[in-house]
Amino acid sequence: MANSFLNELLHSLSDRSRGLLGRSRSAPVPGDLVAFGDQLLSGQGEASGVALARLLLDGYAAAPPNARLAFLMALAERFGTDPDKVESAIAAYRQLPGQASLQALHQAAEPPRQELMRRLNLAPGGTAALVRIREELLGHIATEPALRPVNEDFVHLFASWFNRGFLVLRPIDWTTPANILERIIRYEAVHRIRGWEDLRRRLEPADRRCFAFFHPQLVDEPLIFVEVALTREMPDAIAPLLAADRAPIRAEEATTAVFYSISNSQRGLAGVSFGNFLIKQVVEDLRRSLPGLETFATLSPVPGFAAWLASQRAEGKEREFLGEVAAAALAGLDDPDWSEDKEKAEAMRRPLLSAAAYYFLKAKIPSGQPIDSVARFHLRNGARLERINAMADLSRHGLEQAHGLMANYLYDLDQIEANHEAFAAEGRFIASAGVRKLLLTALPARRRHAPHSA
Amino acid sequence: MANSFLNELLHSLSDRSRGLLGRSRSAPVPGDLVAFGDQLLSGQGEASGVALARLLLDGYAAAPPNARLAFLMALAERFGTDPDKVESAIAAYRQLPGQASLQALHQAAEPPRQELMRRLNLAPGGTAALVRIREELLGHIATEPALRPVNEDFVHLFASWFNRGFLVLRPIDWTTPANILERIIRYEAVHRIRGWEDLRRRLEPADRRCFAFFHPQLVDEPLIFVEVALTREMPDAIAPLLAADRAPIRAEEATTAVFYSISNSQRGLAGVSFGNFLIKQVVEDLRRSLPGLETFATLSPVPGFAAWLASQRAEGKEREFLGEVAAAALAGLDDPDWSEDKEKAEAMRRPLLSAAAYYFLKAKIPSGQPIDSVARFHLRNGARLERINAMADLSRHGLEQAHGLMANYLYDLDQIEANHEAFAAEGRFIASAGVRKLLLTALPARRRHAPHSA
Amino acid sequence: MANSFLNELLHSLSDRSRGLLGRSRSAPVPGDLVAFGDQLLSGQGEASGVALARLLLDGYAAAPPNARLAFLMALAERFGTDPDKVESAIAAYRQLPGQASLQALHQAAEPPRQELMRRLNLAPGGTAALVRIREELLGHIATEPALRPVNEDFVHLFASWFNRGFLVLRPIDWTTPANILERIIRYEAVHRIRGWEDLRRRLEPADRRCFAFFHPQLVDEPLIFVEVALTREMPDAIAPLLAADRAPIRAEEATTAVFYSISNSQRGLAGVSFGNFLIKQVVEDLRRSLPGLETFATLSPVPGFAAWLASQRAEGKEREFLGEVAAAALAGLDDPDWSEDKEKAEAMRRPLLSAAAYYFLKAKIPSGQPIDSVARFHLRNGARLERINAMADLSRHGLEQAHGLMANYLYDLDQIEANHEAFAAEGRFIASAGVRKLLLTALPARRRHAPHSA
Amino acid sequence: MANSFLNELLHSLSDRSRGLLGRSRSAPVPGDLVAFGDQLLSGQGEASGVALARLLLDGYAAAPPNARLAFLMALAERFGTDPDKVESAIAAYRQLPGQASLQALHQAAEPPRQELMRRLNLAPGGTAALVRIREELLGHIATEPALRPVNEDFVHLFASWFNRGFLVLRPIDWTTPANILERIIRYEAVHRIRGWEDLRRRLEPADRRCFAFFHPQLVDEPLIFVEVALTREMPDAIAPLLAADRAPIRAEEATTAVFYSISNSQRGLAGVSFGNFLIKQVVEDLRRSLPGLETFATLSPVPGFAAWLASQRAEGKEREFLGEVAAAALAGLDDPDWSEDKEKAEAMRRPLLSAAAYYFLKAKIPSGQPIDSVARFHLRNGARLERINAMADLSRHGLEQAHGLMANYLYDLDQIEANHEAFAAEGRFIASAGVRKLLLTALPARRRHAPHSA
Repeated sequence: MANSFLNELLHSLSDRSRGLLGRSRSAPVPGDLVAFGDQLLSGQGEASGVALARLLLDGYAAAPPNARLAFLMALAERFGTDPDKVESAIAAYRQLPGQASLQALHQAAEPPRQELMRRLNLAPGGTAALVRIREELLGHIATEPALRPVNEDFVHLFASWFNRGFLVLRPIDWTTPANILERIIRYEAVHRIRGWEDLRRRLEPADRRCFAFFHPQLVDEPLIFVEVALTREMPDAIAPLLAADRAPIRAEEATTAVFYSISNSQRGLAGVSFGNFLIKQVVEDLRRSLPGLETFATLSPVPGFAAWLASQRAEGKEREFLGEVAAAALAGLDDPDWSEDKEKAEAMRRPLLSAAAYYFLKAKIPSGQPIDSVARFHLRNGARLERINAMADLSRHGLEQAHGLMANYLYDLDQIEANHEAFAAEGRFIASAGVRKLLLTALPARRRHAPHSA
Repeated sequence: MANSFLNELLHSLSDRSRGLLGRSRSAPVPGDLVAFGDQLLSGQGEASGVALARLLLDGYAAAPPNARLAFLMALAERFGTDPDKVESAIAAYRQLPGQASLQALHQAAEPPRQELMRRLNLAPGGTAALVRIREELLGHIATEPALRPVNEDFVHLFASWFNRGFLVLRPIDWTTPANILERIIRYEAVHRIRGWEDLRRRLEPADRRCFAFFHPQLVDEPLIFVEVALTREMPDAIAPLLAADRAPIRAEEATTAVFYSISNSQRGLAGVSFGNFLIKQVVEDLRRSLPGLETFATLSPVPGFAAWLASQRAEGKEREFLGEVAAAALAGLDDPDWSEDKEKAEAMRRPLLSAAAYYFLKAKIPSGQPIDSVARFHLRNGARLERINAMADLSRHGLEQAHGLMANYLYDLDQIEANHEAFAAEGRFIASAGVRKLLLTALPARRRHAPHSA
Repeated sequence: MANSFLNELLHSLSDRSRGLLGRSRSAPVPGDLVAFGDQLLSGQGEASGVALARLLLDGYAAAPPNARLAFLMALAERFGTDPDKVESAIAAYRQLPGQASLQALHQAAEPPRQELMRRLNLAPGGTAALVRIREELLGHIATEPALRPVNEDFVHLFASWFNRGFLVLRPIDWTTPANILERIIRYEAVHRIRGWEDLRRRLEPADRRCFAFFHPQLVDEPLIFVEVALTREMPDAIAPLLAADRAPIRAEEATTAVFYSISNSQRGLAGVSFGNFLIKQVVEDLRRSLPGLETFATLSPVPGFAAWLASQRAEGKEREFLGEVAAAALAGLDDPDWSEDKEKAEAMRRPLLSAAAYYFLKAKIPSGQPIDSVARFHLRNGARLERINAMADLSRHGLEQAHGLMANYLYDLDQIEANHEAFAAEGRFIASAGVRKLLLTALPARRRHAPHSA
Repeated sequence: MANSFLNELLHSLSDRSRGLLGRSRSAPVPGDLVAFGDQLLSGQGEASGVALARLLLDGYAAAPPNARLAFLMALAERFGTDPDKVESAIAAYRQLPGQASLQALHQAAEPPRQELMRRLNLAPGGTAALVRIREELLGHIATEPALRPVNEDFVHLFASWFNRGFLVLRPIDWTTPANILERIIRYEAVHRIRGWEDLRRRLEPADRRCFAFFHPQLVDEPLIFVEVALTREMPDAIAPLLAADRAPIRAEEATTAVFYSISNSQRGLAGVSFGNFLIKQVVEDLRRSLPGLETFATLSPVPGFAAWLASQRAEGKEREFLGEVAAAALAGLDDPDWSEDKEKAEAMRRPLLSAAAYYFLKAKIPSGQPIDSVARFHLRNGARLERINAMADLSRHGLEQAHGLMANYLYDLDQIEANHEAFAAEGRFIASAGVRKLLLTALPARRRHAPHSA
């Protein structure tokens, strides 16, 4: 590591000068990032670790794109596992098999970048910086497969650091600091928030709630948040819930809590799952504060339905599960304005619901799981698909992705555990009788009656 | 894992019943702890993970000692690495060497207990419970070497969770909550605190400070804390600093901050080092709030001196580095009351200081590091041994461990980095000219003059 | 106000220099306090008011006793009402009677010291300083009747500043800052707290609560606090409640909340009443958090009983309401150790209870109110005297003031309003049938039967 | 007070029922408000005071306008001073003159509404409700002179409750809760804030600050706030300060803090002055955190200039202080678009500045104070008029009220006290030499030379 610039720098890097360096930083020469990494790893991390970590992270943030990518590639290679060490550890294990030598092998096979990441996390703001670095890495992963192991190490460390035990649930309301609310506006991924007044309508009325998970190291950054409407019944469309002129009810009158939007905020934390913990904690908190609540359900998008149906129709397969009549009716979808014509829309309702029932209950991805990603999420959490609603989201986006369909998933506290087991262990798709019946009516007459004839 | 009791339990374990289970728990049968562990690992950790983790941790806390040890042994063995998986991973690596297969090998060699520990950390209070479990494990490690890899995994995870980036420095003063102050009294390890009035004398006067590191998950538990006296000069004895009737000075008058006690509070976190970060952060904070401070130094114990000197004298080696006269003078130590007789004490001063200089600068442990553990700590942090003080701690404990000696380590902000490098990289013991001179005078005449004749 | 020292001072008193003055203050010459007062009143209070107020308050705190008394006397006289202004206002009112001229008269008659006090309150810490000044004033009032109007003005202003709307109720527990707990120990006026461990026994167990009122301007000073025991029945003695070795119950098991100590902390706020608001708020809070609570009662001292009984016996009046037999039994009190002899104590029980019933229900102060000050407090709040307990407080203090008697006052939420009205409007002493029956049995046979013969 | 409805109500008004009453309140019959007031005053305020106060305040808020006015009139009359009591007190004073009887007279002349207001303040939210009531009262005062004494009593009580000692200064920034920021938008009175993005530009950049005073009882309500720009020089126009596309500087680079907007938020607190305390506290805080700041100045409107100049011109008086030439030039103002024509605007600059200098320095209201209300405010605080800027506010409002002029008032910490004294005691208008010179040039030649000839 004979880098005289670096050595000079480091020798002048007492804690005393850190403050200055921190502020009037100039972007370091690209090569330095890797050199900093070497230095950070070689030290004991004790005297200059914090300052050095900060220097590297600041340098990364200020570096041009090619230098940043070069650093990511160095994580994959230079800071990857040393095969020689692994060979030695294998040899030692062969000589004296046992848990101790296995552990030594485990340690020998750990890529040094993991320790580098832990040391980078020493810096003030280190966690946030690492989350942003990984977000950037995700953008390269398709073209640079060598980055995949690096990505896995990020997920491994983040899963440990963002363990549910370290997360804090906080209500988000109209008294929440503006810098956090601004992020809620920006991060909302399901039903776009159109500015501050729109946000206010989702937070301030007596029948609205919002909750987010925070991590002590990212105090201003909601990791994931859920928006809740308190209602008197399970809703079958989104527009009335968000209408600017609707009349709020008192929270005590509500019987139903509707989770109508769940948004992950940090792309850099993709793969670290918070959503299941969030919903359960929110259900518990709501039940405690509002004992009148009896039903906990979502009003959820059906993200893959339109694309799936298009592919079925392209191959003419829809007849198999809809029968000729309903399949023919689907042609109505080809009229771009079908949803605005009351009659046409009414005619589409049944065929769409039937197709959707098939989509949910029968269509699978290669792993054998349901094709709908939102369904996978809620079923894994122990919810059940309670109802499919036609004409439920007539926004452009809602029509494009799901021909206006939305779904209610029900969180029945007494069934959550059994539902989860049935889905996780046996792969069963838990749905209400009403949904299953749609499927039955969807099947062509012949197949539909088959069971009876058996 | 066909355990019908467990299965029954788990099926009734919805979130709904968790509250009840949490409260009216009865101690589970020993075997259950391991069964719970299997279950916790086998699940996806999503639906019942939090509740199951809590059940296991509560069960452990309530179990009898033999059941607890059995669970620890299961961590070592049952939840240890599976050799078959490792063999497969080695084979795969041989077939297709590269970072990807090395990472797969790393993962195959990871003992499942690591994941188990991460899932236990899901429970509310999980981190604290795991710290206590490891504290218990440390008590068995001498007699059960199989627990050593388990211990290493604890250290590995704790180092990640208690990363300095997650720690929060808080001043401790007389407005601190009583439950935390109570722990300060209990955990103080250097100069015992004799009740609340004694504590108050260390916190309330204008020339006293105390700081502790906290972790967000252990809110009421100081992890490590340092007590500071603000003075006009570097002190050479502990009693005047702690005297009940001393006259405080105004903080603005102080030129020197004396770190006179540093205590680690959590035995379960042994091996996870916070001390160096603590001192540096406190130095920074004090400099900001009190610009008049120029000197940052410790008044530290010399824990191994008396034992080391006894062993030297037992072998008659002290003559080699003290010369006959001074060595003979040490016989005065055999009078148990030597320190109470002013004349005798004065006669011991020089021989003791000389012996101590040799102890610090020359005596080494097998690894080649200085024998004094406190010296190792401060030198690694970049401090320098500034002064050795005779008759500095005349408490019974102080006489027993160090014949009344104490040391000042100086944190010179401009030298910290260089000192650290010299110690860490080259193994040099950084000491002031004054201390080194003691060593010179300690050498017998013949050797002492040698350099001059060269 | 030709005071050159003062003028010089004031002209140098920019906000810039305030900090220095505040710190390195030397005690001002006595006369200055009054001169400062003049200056503070003469200004518009706008530019230098805050600094001047602080100077006066600091000066008062540092001044010798005679200078302080001189300042208090100046409040009475120099800063008293100006008769000439009042005469003019009366004349103006005579000329043009009406609300406007009445208000002008009201203002003319307001002593300037009220405005002076308001301006002193501008200083940081001003409120606390004024409370301490009034505390001092109370010590002089018996010998200096001229201070009485000053005292009334303090009460008038404090009642406005410490209006219940500005008070904040806070639970006091083992996580409360030590500096506040220290004051709880010091201020406890009913059952002395013997150090931190004793305090802890009153705060930490699951069946103990403590609440205090705070004012935003006196953040570290509890104004009044109440200690509560959660029990399964209304207690008839204090020792078991405070026993070091008692077994706590779970809060959820409790049916009864016992207010066993209410202490006013600030003598300077005497006459500004918080106690009634405190008890009601605590009852509301406890009911909300512990729905199992059904009974809210006190275990209270009977402060004046022994003195009153002695005076009755000195005049031989006790025979009138006890009858000869019971009155004779009271002679047992003359044995100083009566309470330690089980038999003797048992013999005293009935006569004491009967005498106490008479003391509560019949003995009055000149204004016609009950003689017992604690009874007046609780009855005015709407409580009822529920039970008198013999041998309830056998501490030396308890025997001296009440021959060991204690009383339970019951706060029955459905009766509070009616009880208060009956007491406040009609002067009725609300007591349970049990207490009233004691009175009946206390009356000599002749009078007791009289009603029947009517 | 034989009001059976009221009595019934009160007897059912235990604390138990308060919650219900509080919630499902129906608007009370008008007369009740006064009856409630009688009841609230007649009681001891102890048992039912809080509930009764709340009932009255809720009733007032729900009552129709005529009922509310009737209650205000009752405050003036029914709850006014009782002349008989005053007569008795006068008689008593005549008989025994002295401070005690003067105080009794003072108390007799206090209108009972003051006590009523204090008792209303017992209710949760009472302070805020009373502020709103007074705001309403201000709207009637011009037509109902009988309300004037009521208004004075409000001011008297508010001055006591909102004493500077009870106020808390808080920075307002982009992390402030949204509900408070929303009020900043609404209450800004000087330069309108056009929505959240505009607000953000005033709070988030490194060279912007905002501070507000809060009262513990009105936690979400800023009482007064000031917006500050950190700059490198004293600005001479408002538009560049507020430009959306300006480039912020680092706070450490700033030498000047510009108070460019001060807004009182609560009309109900008119007459209770906070502004002077606010500016001084903000200056102190800024100096501490940014030692590079040397100059503290405002950029202020000149609210009455255009109206005053119009009146001067209407009477042809402007020639007296401007001379013929400049006076003639003012005719340019009659062109409504003069400010948009660069040449015309330039020609107006000098005459306008000269006229303004006369307006500030010579024009007086009947009391002898300067005619400009903003000047009165800052001069009373010890500032000096530093500069008058032409073409400084070209917004429609700025042109209408001041022909585009704005003023800088300078807060020179070393002169504040002397300036205040000179203004408050001697009525001197403190202005810079530059401003005074404008005046000189404004005077017609004859008078201008007069001093020299004397």
